[in-house]
Amino acid sequence: MNAEIIAIGSELLTPFRQDTNSLYLTERLNQLGVEVIFKTIVGDSREHLTGVAILAVSRAEVVIFMGGLGPTEDDLTREAVADALGLELRRDPEIIRWLEQRFAARGWKMAANNLKQADVIAGATVLPNANGSAPGQWLSGKLEGRERIIMLLPGPPHELKAMFEEQCQARLRAKLPPQFIATRELKITGPGESACDARVAPIYKRYTDVDTTILAGAGEIQLHLKTRAASLDAAQNRVDQLAEEIEHEMGDLVFSDNGDSMEQIVGYYLQMRNATLAVAESCTGGLLGERITSVSGSSRYFLGGAIVYSNQLKTAFADVPAELIEKHGAVSREVAAAMAEGIRKRSCATLGLSVTGVAGPNGGTDAKPVGLVFHGLASDSGTEVVERTFAGDRKRIRRFASQQALDMVRRKLM
Amino acid sequence: MNAEIIAIGSELLTPFRQDTNSLYLTERLNQLGVEVIFKTIVGDSREHLTGVAILAVSRAEVVIFMGGLGPTEDDLTREAVADALGLELRRDPEIIRWLEQRFAARGWKMAANNLKQADVIAGATVLPNANGSAPGQWLSGKLEGRERIIMLLPGPPHELKAMFEEQCQARLRAKLPPQFIATRELKITGPGESACDARVAPIYKRYTDVDTTILAGAGEIQLHLKTRAASLDAAQNRVDQLAEEIEHEMGDLVFSDNGDSMEQIVGYYLQMRNATLAVAESCTGGLLGERITSVSGSSRYFLGGAIVYSNQLKTAFADVPAELIEKHGAVSREVAAAMAEGIRKRSCATLGLSVTGVAGPNGGTDAKPVGLVFHGLASDSGTEVVERTFAGDRKRIRRFASQQALDMVRRKLM
Repeated sequence: MNAEIIAIGSELLTPFRQDTNSLYLTERLNQLGVEVIFKTIVGDSREHLTGVAILAVSRAEVVIFMGGLGPTEDDLTREAVADALGLELRRDPEIIRWLEQRFAARGWKMAANNLKQADVIAGATVLPNANGSAPGQWLSGKLEGRERIIMLLPGPPHELKAMFEEQCQARLRAKLPPQFIATRELKITGPGESACDARVAPIYKRYTDVDTTILAGAGEIQLHLKTRAASLDAAQNRVDQLAEEIEHEMGDLVFSDNGDSMEQIVGYYLQMRNATLAVAESCTGGLLGERITSVSGSSRYFLGGAIVYSNQLKTAFADVPAELIEKHGAVSREVAAAMAEGIRKRSCATLGLSVTGVAGPNGGTDAKPVGLVFHGLASDSGTEVVERTFAGDRKRIRRFASQQALDMVRRKLM
Repeated sequence: MNAEIIAIGSELLTPFRQDTNSLYLTERLNQLGVEVIFKTIVGDSREHLTGVAILAVSRAEVVIFMGGLGPTEDDLTREAVADALGLELRRDPEIIRWLEQRFAARGWKMAANNLKQADVIAGATVLPNANGSAPGQWLSGKLEGRERIIMLLPGPPHELKAMFEEQCQARLRAKLPPQFIATRELKITGPGESACDARVAPIYKRYTDVDTTILAGAGEIQLHLKTRAASLDAAQNRVDQLAEEIEHEMGDLVFSDNGDSMEQIVGYYLQMRNATLAVAESCTGGLLGERITSVSGSSRYFLGGAIVYSNQLKTAFADVPAELIEKHGAVSREVAAAMAEGIRKRSCATLGLSVTGVAGPNGGTDAKPVGLVFHGLASDSGTEVVERTFAGDRKRIRRFASQQALDMVRRKLM
């Protein structure tokens, strides 16, 4: 079965805001075996929206409208979809009662414009909204001889998600042939996208029944695997088999086989080894700490550290001798090592992790170009330093550097 | 004039990847006075794409196709648009020569499939691609009696941007009535979205000729103003006038009137006052430092600081007495003040800034719920602490806290 997703709202046609609900819905639809074949974004124009609705029901089997269900003049989805389908709108007394209660419970008087939220397309099932004032609608059946499923969902993401999961998913599954989708997500760090693809493409191309999508970011390549089969076991076995072959080929470059982030993986290892971590960051300026502490519960293994942006603080907080900085420069193998050792000692952590580099766009020299970064890791078995030169802008270089640093911790504890 | 933007590529119909080119193009088109009325996303299907193209030229005056211009079987934009317009494709010998040279320069032999990149729709102008192998195409004129402008642009953002700016913008401007667009962006921190809108809506609603868009994030509300007029001066005066009225109403809650970020504004003030800053972060875990150092050149005023995630490091790096933590708890007015004072003293910075709070989702108590954050700012004139309780998830609470902390620096130096 295929689907079209339609996002409604003039704000989605500005340079400032983008539909993101469709990514969520696509994931859910794919899990049910429904493929998205069109996405359309249209403003709050009744004429435009009616045209889009007529077209969508002619070309897709499932049509999901998102947004335009509120009480204002700009909210025209109900009217436009009814027009497009040649069906009437009827004001539902139960919704009116519910709206009135909702307002009364907050001590407000309901303005008359709210009544339009009680308009229901003839034959539609009302989808109560537990998180807002706009109910959704579900409509399924034959339209001009073709089986169609049509949903009207509210635009705010938390309202849409709750309504889809609690009321639409099961209804949709009941309309679909029984089939099961399994997915896996592998994450790889180290090689670039084309080098990685050159190694894994010969493998996944043999799995013609598995969809493989490669996405590359700074220091991280994601492989999304997806297949469908008549049983969940069969589908799961198939993606697991492919995942295993890829992991065999890529070895420990694969840092996650279930979608977990690098900072989560590092957190697991630190807990598993009963170890603690402290950081001394120069060019990343706090990004490393921010990533580590974005994981809830990270206080169990992360002590903190120092943002040693100035040379003076490299000495004050990480005991880097001023002469060492003088001699080798702040961006050097020696200073990275001293930072990692210093922060480890000062914090009494099991591991001390450091980053010093040239994030750019200024400050590069021939000897030390923009993108050059030294990463240090100190432990009771000594200190290692990794030198890398990353390409990209300031943001990308800092992201690369934080990923490399975290990966050193992973490899140390693996 | 109005436009439809069409993004082509099956990867844009997965849960993992989203069209972002359209945001850039929308901004550029708006600057020229062209409004985007539809955005469509379609996969690599010749049939679907042809249908989309027929529809688009029937409903929009400018139609921009993005992607599907490469050499592979999946690249079908040329064929589909030619079909839709009922025009022939002709293989252009000049493009073939250029492609051959491009391959030869890299020492590669050109595979035969690359030749399809030389196919040009009858009547179209070729747009050379300085950054890739796929040339674009520009087509303008009467189609079934209606004036239409059609562009075929490559999908990779840097190729698309360069081609649009260098080759399409001037061509498009020449087709448009002379009019000028002026924009302004105000950023506000402090009030929530509805409280802010209640104060500014009565003002901007009087400016019916100015489009005003409100966007709310954690601790930041953006007001985008846009108008068009027959002269740039007239347009600029109009948005400036509205901006001034809003600034008059909102006072120093407006922290930026040109789109600059809070971290940039804080950087300007620190440089202006010849002051330096150091931070002691607990619940933000590095986010504050990361934001400050995301600004290139921040080493002129930012010394660094400490991520005092553990109580032990609050004492070791920010001289917070262990008894103070014992007595009041790590999340307290007293500890926030001590952290700010301690980091200021240890770093010899003009200002010491601190954050300690409960970012959640765990760790909250009745007395100290998730979202409770204390922000401290120490200077030679004393120490102030601001207590706030933020709503939202861990990420949002941390973002709110970092914004509040930076705003204290702005207000101190203002």
